[in-house]
Amino acid sequence: MSKTINKLSIIPLGGVGEIGKNMTAYCHGNDIIVIDAGLKFPEEEMLGIDIVIPDITYLIENKQKVRGIFLTHGHEDHIGGLPYFLKHINVPVYGTKLTLGLVEAKLREHGLLDTANLNVITNRSVIQLGCFEVTPFYNNHSIPDTVGFAIDTPEGVVVHTGDFKFDFTPVDGRTADYHKLAELGERGVLALLSDSTNAERPGYTMSERVVGQTIDEVIANAERRVILATFASNLHRIQQVFEAAERHGRKVTVVGRSMVNNINIALELGYLKISKGTLVEPDEINKLPADKIVILSTGSQGEPMSALTRMARATHRKIEILPDDTVIIASSPIPGNEKFVARTIDQLFRIGAKVIYQSVSGVHVSGHASQEELKLMLNLVRPKYFIPVHGEFRMLKRHAELAEMVGVNPDNIFIVDIGDTVEFQNGRGRLGPKVTAGNVLIDGLGVGDVGNIVLRDRKLLSQDGILVVVVTLSKQDGSILSGPDIISRGFVYVRESEELLEEANRIVTQTLSKLVSENVNEWSSLKTGVRDALGRFLYEQTRRRPMILPIIMET
Amino acid sequence: MSKTINKLSIIPLGGVGEIGKNMTAYCHGNDIIVIDAGLKFPEEEMLGIDIVIPDITYLIENKQKVRGIFLTHGHEDHIGGLPYFLKHINVPVYGTKLTLGLVEAKLREHGLLDTANLNVITNRSVIQLGCFEVTPFYNNHSIPDTVGFAIDTPEGVVVHTGDFKFDFTPVDGRTADYHKLAELGERGVLALLSDSTNAERPGYTMSERVVGQTIDEVIANAERRVILATFASNLHRIQQVFEAAERHGRKVTVVGRSMVNNINIALELGYLKISKGTLVEPDEINKLPADKIVILSTGSQGEPMSALTRMARATHRKIEILPDDTVIIASSPIPGNEKFVARTIDQLFRIGAKVIYQSVSGVHVSGHASQEELKLMLNLVRPKYFIPVHGEFRMLKRHAELAEMVGVNPDNIFIVDIGDTVEFQNGRGRLGPKVTAGNVLIDGLGVGDVGNIVLRDRKLLSQDGILVVVVTLSKQDGSILSGPDIISRGFVYVRESEELLEEANRIVTQTLSKLVSENVNEWSSLKTGVRDALGRFLYEQTRRRPMILPIIMET
Repeated sequence: MSKTINKLSIIPLGGVGEIGKNMTAYCHGNDIIVIDAGLKFPEEEMLGIDIVIPDITYLIENKQKVRGIFLTHGHEDHIGGLPYFLKHINVPVYGTKLTLGLVEAKLREHGLLDTANLNVITNRSVIQLGCFEVTPFYNNHSIPDTVGFAIDTPEGVVVHTGDFKFDFTPVDGRTADYHKLAELGERGVLALLSDSTNAERPGYTMSERVVGQTIDEVIANAERRVILATFASNLHRIQQVFEAAERHGRKVTVVGRSMVNNINIALELGYLKISKGTLVEPDEINKLPADKIVILSTGSQGEPMSALTRMARATHRKIEILPDDTVIIASSPIPGNEKFVARTIDQLFRIGAKVIYQSVSGVHVSGHASQEELKLMLNLVRPKYFIPVHGEFRMLKRHAELAEMVGVNPDNIFIVDIGDTVEFQNGRGRLGPKVTAGNVLIDGLGVGDVGNIVLRDRKLLSQDGILVVVVTLSKQDGSILSGPDIISRGFVYVRESEELLEEANRIVTQTLSKLVSENVNEWSSLKTGVRDALGRFLYEQTRRRPMILPIIMET
Repeated sequence: MSKTINKLSIIPLGGVGEIGKNMTAYCHGNDIIVIDAGLKFPEEEMLGIDIVIPDITYLIENKQKVRGIFLTHGHEDHIGGLPYFLKHINVPVYGTKLTLGLVEAKLREHGLLDTANLNVITNRSVIQLGCFEVTPFYNNHSIPDTVGFAIDTPEGVVVHTGDFKFDFTPVDGRTADYHKLAELGERGVLALLSDSTNAERPGYTMSERVVGQTIDEVIANAERRVILATFASNLHRIQQVFEAAERHGRKVTVVGRSMVNNINIALELGYLKISKGTLVEPDEINKLPADKIVILSTGSQGEPMSALTRMARATHRKIEILPDDTVIIASSPIPGNEKFVARTIDQLFRIGAKVIYQSVSGVHVSGHASQEELKLMLNLVRPKYFIPVHGEFRMLKRHAELAEMVGVNPDNIFIVDIGDTVEFQNGRGRLGPKVTAGNVLIDGLGVGDVGNIVLRDRKLLSQDGILVVVVTLSKQDGSILSGPDIISRGFVYVRESEELLEEANRIVTQTLSKLVSENVNEWSSLKTGVRDALGRFLYEQTRRRPMILPIIMET
C-alpha cells in the first residue's frame, strides 16, 4: 500500500465545463468517496451516440480506496452513469428514498439490482466512510428528496450543494436545511462546491407554487380537455396537477412510459398523494365528458417518439388531441431541443388546440438557483475556498464573480476542468496534477468502442454519402476483368445521375489502365489512384466529397 | 393563351409555416409578379445539404406570364434564391440600391450578372407591370434600404410589408413611410400580408439606437481592444461602431469575408459614412496600442469557420484575442445555433477575455416588429383581409389573433401554407386550389438531386456507419472462392473489435453455404440472406444497425 499522504484532493470527473455527467471524487490518504454518477446527452457531432458517461479510469486504478458513492438526487445527469460505475466499482450507494427508488429501476434493467448495496439516507444522517464523515442536508430542486452533502474531512468541512434552489414555499413543505448550512458556516467551511447552472440569471428563481397557480387557473378556465406535458421527474408539479384537477372535478390519466413509471414509484414510496378515484386509466377517459379530463404526458421537449408528439400527430394508440383541447407545455427547452419543441407547438396549433408554453406564460420555473440565491448560499456557508461546479465555463466564471462580490478571496476561487485536482493541505488550497478524465461514448451495447475515427467517418458519411468501387483485375497482366461497378449510398439520386456515374466509371477505368501501364501494381497505390482521380472528378462535377471505398480484386 | 380570369391570386411559395425562403406570387389574368426569392438554411435532418430554396415549378409552368420580381431587402432569406430563380425565369429585378448592390455580388458569383436586368427603385417609385402597379414604401429593419410594397391590382390594393419594425429614431434618420401607409389605409386596402416573426413578443422592439448607446459605453470603458461581432448586413450597427470608435479615439479594422465585402459595398454605395483614417488594415493594428483598437468581425452565430471563432482559437492568420480584450457578441442566436454561440463564449472566457453577450446585456435588438408595432401596422393599413406571413405556424396564429383584436373580421383572416392560393374576386376572398410548392435542396452544385432516399441513407450512415461485405463465388458450384472480406466505416473501432468482425465473417460464410446448398442462387436472394443474417447478428451483439452492403462476385 502506498504511503498515506495527508492532503485532501477534490477531483471533478464530470460536470465542470459542461452541463451533464456530474461526478466528483473526494480523496484523502487511502480513502475515496464519490458524489454522483451522471450521464450527458451527446453533442451534435457525436453522431449515433446514445449517451456519454465520465471516464472513471482514475477511480478504477484506485478501486481499493473507493469507500462509497453518494447521490444528490434522481436526475439522469446525476444517476444515469451509475450502472456503468457499479459494473467496475461495486461499492455501497447512498441516496434518499426517492433517489434510490429511481436507481433501483435503472439497476434492474442492467441486471445489477441483486449485487448492489443500496443505503437510504435522510436529512442529517451521518455516514462515516474511512476518514470522511458525510452529512446530507435537504435542499430544493425540480425533483423531490434532493440533498447536498457536508463532508467532514481531516482538512476541514467541504459543502457540496448538488443541484439546488431556495424555494421558500416548497410544494411538499420541506424547505432547505438553512439551519444546517448556517451552523456549518458558523463553525467554518474549508470549501464550497456550488451549482452554477443559473449563475447568468439575475434575481431569484420563482417558487414551484407559482406554476401550481397558473396550472390551476388554466384548468379552471378550460372548456374541454387539458393536456399537460412536463418532466416525468418533477413530482411536485405533478402533485399540483392532481390537486388542481381534483379541485375542478376532473379525472387525471397518465401517458408516456417514464411518466407512468415515475408516478408509480412516487406513489409506492409516498411522494405523491392522490385522492382515491382521481387517477384513471387512459381507456376510461373516453367515457368522460371533455371538461372532466386532465391528461398528464411526457414529451415536453418535443421528443419525436414521446406521448405528446404522438398524440399531436394522431399516432398515439389511445389518445388523440382534438380542436379546442388546452395543451400546457410546462418546461423550457433544453439547449438543442428548441426546434423540436417549436415543431410540436406548431403541430398542436395546427390541430386547433389552445397551446400554453413558456415564451408566452408562466407554466415553468427553473430548478436551479439564480444569482441572489447563489449569493445567499455563499453568505450562509462563508467558505474559505470556492469551486463553482455544474456548468459550462461561462457559468462557472459568472459564479466565481458572484463569490468574489460576496467576499471570497479571488485567489481562493478555482475554476476547474474535468480531471483537475484541487488539493488542500494545512488549510491551504492549490491546483494539483491532472488525472485521466473525459467522455466515454455509449452506442447501443458498446461502451467506449466508438471514438474519433468512427465519429469522423460517420460525419463524412452523413455529409455526402459513400461510393463503393468494385473492380477485378487479371493476375497476369493487370487488365480489368470485371467492373468497375460503382455503388453509391447517400450521394445522389442514382436515377437522375446516370451520366455522372457512367463518366465516373470511365475515370476509374482510365486511371487503372494508366497505372497498370506504368507498372504500378501495389494495391494501396492503385486504390489511392482511384480514390484521388474519382474524388477530384466528383468534386469538380458536384462540389461534394463522398467517401470513396475502392475494392480491387485479383483473379 | 388561356382565357383571362378576372381574379387576383396570392400564392406564398415560401415563408409561411417556416422561417426562411420567402417568396410570394401575385397573379391576375396573364400577369404574375413575384416578391422576394429567399433561401432557408437546412433543418437538422437534411444532412449534408447546403441551402434550401422554394420549388418554383408553378412559376416555371407559367413563365410567359411572369413580368418581374421585386425584392424587399438584401437578407439571404429574401434574395438568396434569386440566382436559381433567374436561371429559369430571367425577368426584370426591382430592388433598392443597397439590395441590388448585394444582389450584384451574388449574381457575379453565379455568372449571371451580365444577363440580369436590374432596376433600382426607391420610396414611392411607381412600377407598372401588366395589370399591377407597384409602389415601394420605406420601412425599418436590421439592414438599410428595406421596403414594403403597395400593389395596386384590379381587385384593390394589397400591402406586402416585407420584414419590418417601426424604429422611431432610426440610425440613418430614414423613418418608415407612415404617411403612405396612412394614405393607403384611408383609401382602403383589400389585403395586408405582414411580417409575423415577433408576433409572440409583447410590447415594442427597441430602437437600434439603444445598441449604439451600449456599444459606446463599452468602448468608452474598455481598457484594451474591443472586438465586436455582428451580422455583416447590419450596417446601421456597423455605422454606430465606427462612430463610437471615433469618439473614443480608436481605429477600426474589419475581419471576416462577408463583413469585408458588405462594408465595401456599403461604402461604395454611400450606406456607411466613415471619417478618413478610422478604417485600417488588419496588419496595421499590431502597431497600435490596445486601447486604440476596435475589431469588427463576423462570427456572431458561433460559426466554426468564422473570424471570431478562429480568433478565439488562435487559428486566425492575423489576429488573436488576448486576455482582457473585450468581446461584444451583438446578436442573439438563431434557433439551432445556441450551442455554437455558447461554445464560442466559453472559449472567449477561457482566454480571459471580457465577454458581453445578449443574455446578460443589451447589445442586440431585433429587426422585427413586436406585437404593438404589428397592431400599429394593422391600424394604419386597416385591411379588409389579412394574411400573416414570414413565420412558423404558431407565429402566424398569434399574428392572426392580433389582427382579430384590432378589428379584422376573423372570417377574413387566412393562415396559409406554401402552395395555398388566396383568391380575390369582386371584393371577396377565399382559399383557391393548391399549386406545387415545397423545398428544393441544394448540395454543392446539385439542385434537387438529393431527396428523401438519399437523406434517409445519410441518416442511417450517420447513426451506425456501413459494412461492405465482399465475396467471390464459383460459377460452377457456388462455393466461396475468396472472401468474405468485411470493410467497415463509422461502425466500430476495428482494432478493438477483431473478434466481432471475425464472427461476422463466419456468419456470412455459413449463410452463403447454406443458401447455396439449398440451391438459392439469384443474387438478390443471396444478398438479402447475407444482409438479414449479418444485421441480426450485429444488432444482437451491439444494438446497432449499420447499413450492410453485400457485394457478391462470380468467377
